Parts: sequence; C-alpha cells; structure tokens
Amino acid sequence: MKRHLISAADLTRDDAILILDTAEEMARVADRPIKKLPTLRGRTVVNLFFEDSTRTRISFEAAAKRLSADVINFSAKGSSVSKGESLKDTALTLEAMGADAVVIRHHASGAPHRLANSGWIGGSVVNAGDGTHEHPTQALLDAFTMRRHLAGAADGGPVHHRGPGDGTGRDLEGRRVTIVGDVLHSRVARSNVHLLGTLGAHVTLVAPPTLLPIGIENWPCEVSYDLDAVLAKSDAVMMLRVQRERMNAAFFPTEREYSRRYGLDAARMAALPEHAIVMHPGPMNRGMEIAAEVADSVRSTIVEQVSNGVSVRMAVMYLLLGGAAPPAELPAAATARTEEKNS
Amino acid sequence: MKRHLISAADLTRDDAILILDTAEEMARVADRPIKKLPTLRGRTVVNLFFEDSTRTRISFEAAAKRLSADVINFSAKGSSVSKGESLKDTALTLEAMGADAVVIRHHASGAPHRLANSGWIGGSVVNAGDGTHEHPTQALLDAFTMRRHLAGAADGGPVHHRGPGDGTGRDLEGRRVTIVGDVLHSRVARSNVHLLGTLGAHVTLVAPPTLLPIGIENWPCEVSYDLDAVLAKSDAVMMLRVQRERMNAAFFPTEREYSRRYGLDAARMAALPEHAIVMHPGPMNRGMEIAAEVADSVRSTIVEQVSNGVSVRMAVMYLLLGGAAPPAELPAAATARTEEKNS
Amino acid sequence: MKRHLISAADLTRDDAILILDTAEEMARVADRPIKKLPTLRGRTVVNLFFEDSTRTRISFEAAAKRLSADVINFSAKGSSVSKGESLKDTALTLEAMGADAVVIRHHASGAPHRLANSGWIGGSVVNAGDGTHEHPTQALLDAFTMRRHLAGAADGGPVHHRGPGDGTGRDLEGRRVTIVGDVLHSRVARSNVHLLGTLGAHVTLVAPPTLLPIGIENWPCEVSYDLDAVLAKSDAVMMLRVQRERMNAAFFPTEREYSRRYGLDAARMAALPEHAIVMHPGPMNRGMEIAAEVADSVRSTIVEQVSNGVSVRMAVMYLLLGGAAPPAELPAAATARTEEKNS
Repeated sequence: MKRHLISAADLTRDDAILILDTAEEMARVADRPIKKLPTLRGRTVVNLFFEDSTRTRISFEAAAKRLSADVINFSAKGSSVSKGESLKDTALTLEAMGADAVVIRHHASGAPHRLANSGWIGGSVVNAGDGTHEHPTQALLDAFTMRRHLAGAADGGPVHHRGPGDGTGRDLEGRRVTIVGDVLHSRVARSNVHLLGTLGAHVTLVAPPTLLPIGIENWPCEVSYDLDAVLAKSDAVMMLRVQRERMNAAFFPTEREYSRRYGLDAARMAALPEHAIVMHPGPMNRGMEIAAEVADSVRSTIVEQVSNGVSVRMAVMYLLLGGAAPPAELPAAATARTEEKNS
Repeated sequence: MKRHLISAADLTRDDAILILDTAEEMARVADRPIKKLPTLRGRTVVNLFFEDSTRTRISFEAAAKRLSADVINFSAKGSSVSKGESLKDTALTLEAMGADAVVIRHHASGAPHRLANSGWIGGSVVNAGDGTHEHPTQALLDAFTMRRHLAGAADGGPVHHRGPGDGTGRDLEGRRVTIVGDVLHSRVARSNVHLLGTLGAHVTLVAPPTLLPIGIENWPCEVSYDLDAVLAKSDAVMMLRVQRERMNAAFFPTEREYSRRYGLDAARMAALPEHAIVMHPGPMNRGMEIAAEVADSVRSTIVEQVSNGVSVRMAVMYLLLGGAAPPAELPAAATARTEEKNS
Repeated sequence: MKRHLISAADLTRDDAILILDTAEEMARVADRPIKKLPTLRGRTVVNLFFEDSTRTRISFEAAAKRLSADVINFSAKGSSVSKGESLKDTALTLEAMGADAVVIRHHASGAPHRLANSGWIGGSVVNAGDGTHEHPTQALLDAFTMRRHLAGAADGGPVHHRGPGDGTGRDLEGRRVTIVGDVLHSRVARSNVHLLGTLGAHVTLVAPPTLLPIGIENWPCEVSYDLDAVLAKSDAVMMLRVQRERMNAAFFPTEREYSRRYGLDAARMAALPEHAIVMHPGPMNRGMEIAAEVADSVRSTIVEQVSNGVSVRMAVMYLLLGGAAPPAELPAAATARTEEKNS
C-alpha cells in the first residue's frame, strides 16, 4: 500500500482487499474487555477539517483512539487559515509538530492530493472528503458492509451475515449496486463507482439528467433515469443525500416531486430482490430521498455502515501508520492470519 | 441502579446514597500520586452538547478522563444536526460508533428521556441539563456538598467538615435548604427539590410570584416570597443564576430592584445561622443575585461545588459503566467498603 | 524556577538556559519508538483560549500529550465567559476541577499575570500570548532555534547544526538579531527583546516610526528605520507578521509600499552574512513581509521553529509540573545530566 489514501481510484484490488480484511479484524476489537489496541501509542493523528463534518470527524477520532493514538482536532474555522495562511504553511506546521497522519476534509476538490504530493508532509494523508471529488473511506465502509451481506450470494439466494472475506478479492464480483440521487455533487458516488469497479461489482447510477456530471459516459458504470426499472435487478441500493439548496438548480419544482421520482419508499423497496440491502451514507433527509420506514427496516444497513466506518478507519490508519509496530503488538487475529499465510 | 441518569426524581434514596458514597471515594483519587483510575479504559464517553456549556462539558470530560475513558466532544452546532438530522439519527450514529455513554445537554426538556427510552442507544445516557426540566448531576453535587458540611449538625450546632456518609441515608434528614431566584426556568431548582426531598431535607423556594412555575403547590416543598423571613431557619441557601433577559418578563423594572429584594448581600448573610452555607451553581452574576463579598466568604461553598462536581460525575459514570470491571480495578476504598458490607 | 511562566522578562539567565537545555532533551523524545514520556500522567492541562489561535493551541496540546497529560480545551467563545463570567470565576472553576496547569491566551495584556498572582489558581499558569504584551514560549523557541544554528559561530564563520548548549549560558552572547515589522503590536518582539537581552544577544528593531511603541528608547535594544543598513551585520533576521488592518493606521498607502521598504525578498536576503538565518513566528503573509522564495530557502528556520515550539513547551510544562515525579520517570537524558551535575 501507498503511504496515503487520497482516492478510491488509487486502490488496487489487493489494497482494497487488504483493508477490508484488516477491518474485519478491527471489528473484533469492540468485543474485547478493553476495546483498545496499543498499536499507535505515541503517534499523533491530526483531524484537519476545513468543512464541518462532525460525523466523519468523530468516526476518525474514535478509530484513532481505539488504536491508542493521540488525536488533535484542528478546525480551520477561526484559525490562521482564515487569516489567509496557505494550505502549504498549514501543512508544514502540522508536519513540524510531529503529525504522523493528517486526516483532511476540504471543500476544494484536490486539496488532499496537493497535501500528499507536495512533499510538505512526511506522515500519511487520509482524504476524509474533498469537494465533489472523493471520499474513499466512505466507499471502503460501504464495500465492507456489502461484503458482509452479499458476499457469496451472487446466485441471488438468501443473504446471511458472513464472516471475514476469504481474501480472494472475488467477494463482490458480479454484484449489482444501484446508486441513486445527486451524483453530480457526490464524492460518495464517485468513490463508490471506482472502488466497486475495482472489486468487480456492476454499478448503475440513477439520477435526474441535471444531476449527472459531464463525462459520465466515461465512468465504469451504467446510467439510468428510471429508478423503478433497475430495482428488481439490484443487490444493493444506495440512496444519496439530497442537498435541498441544489434542488432548484436541478429544476425540481418541489421536494415532493423529487421524492416521488427518485425517493425510496416502501413500495419501491418491495420491488427489490429478497436479499437486497438498502444503504445511505448519512445524514438522511427522512421523507425526502428515503422514507422513514425504509430507513428503519430490516433491510437497511445504515446504522451498520456507521459502525463499520470505525473499523475501516482503524484498518486504514493501522496499515498506513502501523508498519513499524513490533509483531507482538498486532491484534491477535492479524498475527494469526499473517502466520497462516506464512506457513 | 438503572442504566441511565435522566432525572433526580428517578433516584431512590439508596441510589442517591450509593452515588454520594462512591463520590466520596472518587474525591480521594485526587490525592493519589497519579490522579487516575483505570476503571473505564477502552470505554468511550461522548459529550453530546446541543447547548453551549463549557463548565459542564469540561467537568464531565475531566471526570471521564480521570477514569481513563476516551472522550469525544460532539457539539451539535455546525454538525449535521443543524442540517436537519433528527435526534434519532444522531443517537443511532453515536451508538454505532461504540459510545458506551452519551452525556447529553439539550435545550428541549425531555430530550435525554427520549434518548434513553427509545431503544436507539445501547449504552448509558446521562442528562447534563435539558431545557427547564432537570440537571441531576448538579443536584447530586449540591447534596454531596451539603452532606460534607451539614450532616450530623441537625441540632443547629457548629458545622465541621465530615468524612463520607455513614450510608444510612439520614445525613440530610431534617436539614432546611432555601433555594432563591428564577425557579420557573431553573432545572437546577427542580432537580434539587426532588433529590433533597428523597434525602429527607426540607426545601423552601423563594422567588417572585412571576418566576414560579404553575403547579408549584404540588412540589414537595414550601414556597415563600419573603427571603428575609426564611434566612434564620436555613442550613443552606442556594442562589440561582438570574438570566438578565428574563427580568423584564418578570416585571422587574431594574436589576437593582431584583437584587434588593432577592439578592444575597452581607447583611442578609449575617441573618443566617452560624453553621449555614451559601451555594450557587455558577456562573454567578456577582452583584446581582449574590454580592461579591458573599461569594468569596468562608461560608460560600461555590468553588467546592465545582470540585465536587468532578467527583460526583466520576461516581455516576463509574456506577453506570463500571459494572463489568474486575474487582481488582475498583478503587481501594470501594473494594474495602464492599467487603465490609459483604462480611 | 517559579511556578508560572508569564513573561520572558521574568526569566533569569539560569532559568532560560535550564528550559533550553531541557528542550534539547525533549526534542529527542521524537526519536523514540513510542514518542511519549509518562512524566505528566494523571495531570490535567487546560488550554484556556480567549482568542482563537489554533497553531499555538495545538502546539501546547501536542506537547502536553507527549508528556502523557490529559488535555482539556476551553475556548472562551460561547462559554459562560461570554455570558459575563469574570476571569476570577473562570479561574476558580478550573482550579476546582483540578487543573494542574492553565495555558492562557488572552486579548488583554496582563490577564495571565492577574491569573497567576491572584491566588485563584493553585497550579501553574503559562502565558500563551496576552494582548500586545508577551508571548514567552515563542521567545524561548526562537532562542532555542538560534542557539542550534548560531551558538559557537560568533566569529561569523560558517554555521553548523550543533548539539545541546553547553550550559554556560554564553551561547547567544554577542549574536546580532534583527527584528523587523510591526513592533508596536507585537508580543513576539517584546518577549524576544527581553529574552535575547538576558541571553547576551544584541537586538536591533527595524520598523516604521509609527509602528514603534512609545518608550522604545528604554528597551534594551537598538532601533533603526533602515532595513538595508543592518542586514549585513545580522546573524538572524526575524520578520514579524503584518496585520493588514493596521497598515492604514501606520500611514502606508499600500501593502506594496510596506513590502518594498520592510519586506524581506531575495535581494535583501543576499545581503545577509553567509551563516545568517531567517525567522518568522508564523502565520506568514507570503509576498508581504516575506517573499515566498525567502520563506522556503535553506536559510529559513520557519518550519524548524514550529517543531522546536513543541519541545520548548514540553520543557516548560515538565519543569513547572514535573517536580513531583520520581526520578525513574525522568527522561534518560535528563537523569544523566542531573547525575553529572551532582557528581
């Protein structure tokens, strides 16, 4: 694996599988009497957030603390950044203070890439969402969630909760994932399309034409304007958050009209195959892109996605930063797996 | 004890005594060379604050850290909550991230109750103040402070600092506590009336009629409009914070007029029995509800209340979360006490 | 050493040398496999910030966490302080909560002094910048940086990176330091003038007459209005941050005009002696008081200053708080040095 995680598009199939398998092990830490690993003790993780995102910030914070890292939260609001300091000088400052990892959220697409490729930072950079570009840990936690529910069920049969992946990278091969909503502005959609493609799944985007990006025809996925036409063939449906303020720009006269055409209600959920799951990256607009009864149904993995987010972020930080740790500090499961592979 | 702490009204006498006794033990941790207990290592406490309250937040934060818990601060301002996310979805998110306890401060009365009784949260919920409803840990720290000064002095004799309660629950039996000010909007008053009643103290509320709630006649306390008439019979006087913006609504032409009728100055303090103490939950308006010389006098327990707040909150979190801890991790004093009781 | 660090002017030469020598040892912690010392475990450091300053706050936070202290951030914005609570009551609250050190940043000159000398606080007070008065840890990190580059090079010969000071306090004796810019409003300039004087360096301030304080003739330094005249004799040039909003008050028609007369560009840098270093406390206005190519040149120690800031703040907190620590917990280097001195 590289030193940074900037884009789901950068991940090879092996990288992605390694992260997902490690995340399975991390998920087991929550079952321990003391839910911590000593792996990153003495390491400092800085959450550099230029955009408010409490959910994502606390997920990374919880993940880092479970690995025993020190966490410093740096909200760019009210900081010298707002006095005009450049990203470069902010980066050099964090580097000089000994940040081992910088988790960055930025309103500008490409900011994490600049941070990682500038030479300003000696530690690892993790993209926690940049503009309309990418949100790779979201895609990883989505894939993790799908793998737990759908792996091995490619025959369309009933879905059972499964243990960790078998490491062959074929878990999502051939699975059909439908992503619905404001694709134009969605870094979640973008990262998912890349990662799911790498993992062999088939992605269909469903959106009003005005909410699709230019050049969509070059993305490794299909496009549809008719949600009802694709539901019956979907193993997973991922509803994107609607930004109310962008609805006007999309020529929707009312929220209700959007909801009628692109929202997931109980009737539409009934059209899904029996084994299919319903996903949402949160926060939801209940009643808009997703009906409350759908969000709370047994098919919904929305809460599970949040939980998996912590495991996936632990895995990412562990793999990016933990290299120097002595094997004795590896989680038992990881050590066991390593030994199996070596034997 | 229940799994949550929502209301002082929910506490039985045994619950309250257990918390107060445990807080006495927690107070001793501050005397150790290393002022920490390992009890909650690997547990995560989330401070979910929908209202700013730095004092309360850092008291809970200090308490949790002294128990070695990981603390995550979640200010609802600027979070997805302000983008319209429901309390339910925020709760499900925190639960999914592995919060073992959620300390909630909310402008709406009843929000902590909803959080605790909804099934959204598997961990413990602690009410850190909800609307005009309750603030149970404040009442507990007030009772703790009174017990240290007044227990055993029911004959009106001189007050000495005492050790931990004797566990009989009679410590505040018959003590007379006067609470003065804006009772209408005060969750502190409400929680104190409940808890002090449970502990056998007699409470008198003193307030302008316009600042008393409807239905006050059903509260387990007396009401007076004449501060001077009750001072000589008070073992403790608790002054409530005045919200300047509410004075107009209460038909007070000036702050000075309020202060003249309901403020505690040196002359009024002189009317108290020799052993009586002066309390305030903070932050104070010096010169308004309390004169500076009173706040700083030897009878004032105001600073001590803050200190006791950390001990009481440690006790609450210890009792709510610490159940699974092996006995070897209990503080020495707690273990000793448990053994005594068992023998 | 005293219990507080309020002003660089308070430090004796021995105090300053002790802090700088200890900071050298702290700098080595970053080379350890686990970059932490257990020295302040169980101690609580509160960052009490009445002014936003993310850089300074996270530097103190990183320093305290490397010493294993618990850190509580208290931003006075939105707190009861903004509801009118006095500094006194805030201080008493923090004291009562068990703060072992309060790091205070305040817009009012003298606030840290009041906090330290009021008797409100039993722990240590560290000034992290007060109004236009002082910023002593900045001066210490600047001196630390100069010592590493300039000590022993007083003959004007080439500069080599040097190890820790020899403890004789003569390291900066006779070095010539030029500080350029808005001295009037700069606590950094003020603290540096005091500390550098104590350490035996010669300071020259260069500023427009309107940006020099009244009484400057009594400061232990020289004053010049002509930057070009002093460069060739400088061992270090420290550029101060320009507050754009103050330029008008200083009768500068344009930023460009300021930059032309008082900015450090490549041409001016070429006039410096070969061994001289270029410093800036950050955040910089690149292109205003300092050209980008100068900021990024090999002579620039700007990033190093940030890094040294963590070591210096570790040293300050270690010396103020660590007295009670058993010798076994001292960093190896510190122990070794102590033993040497005792033998």
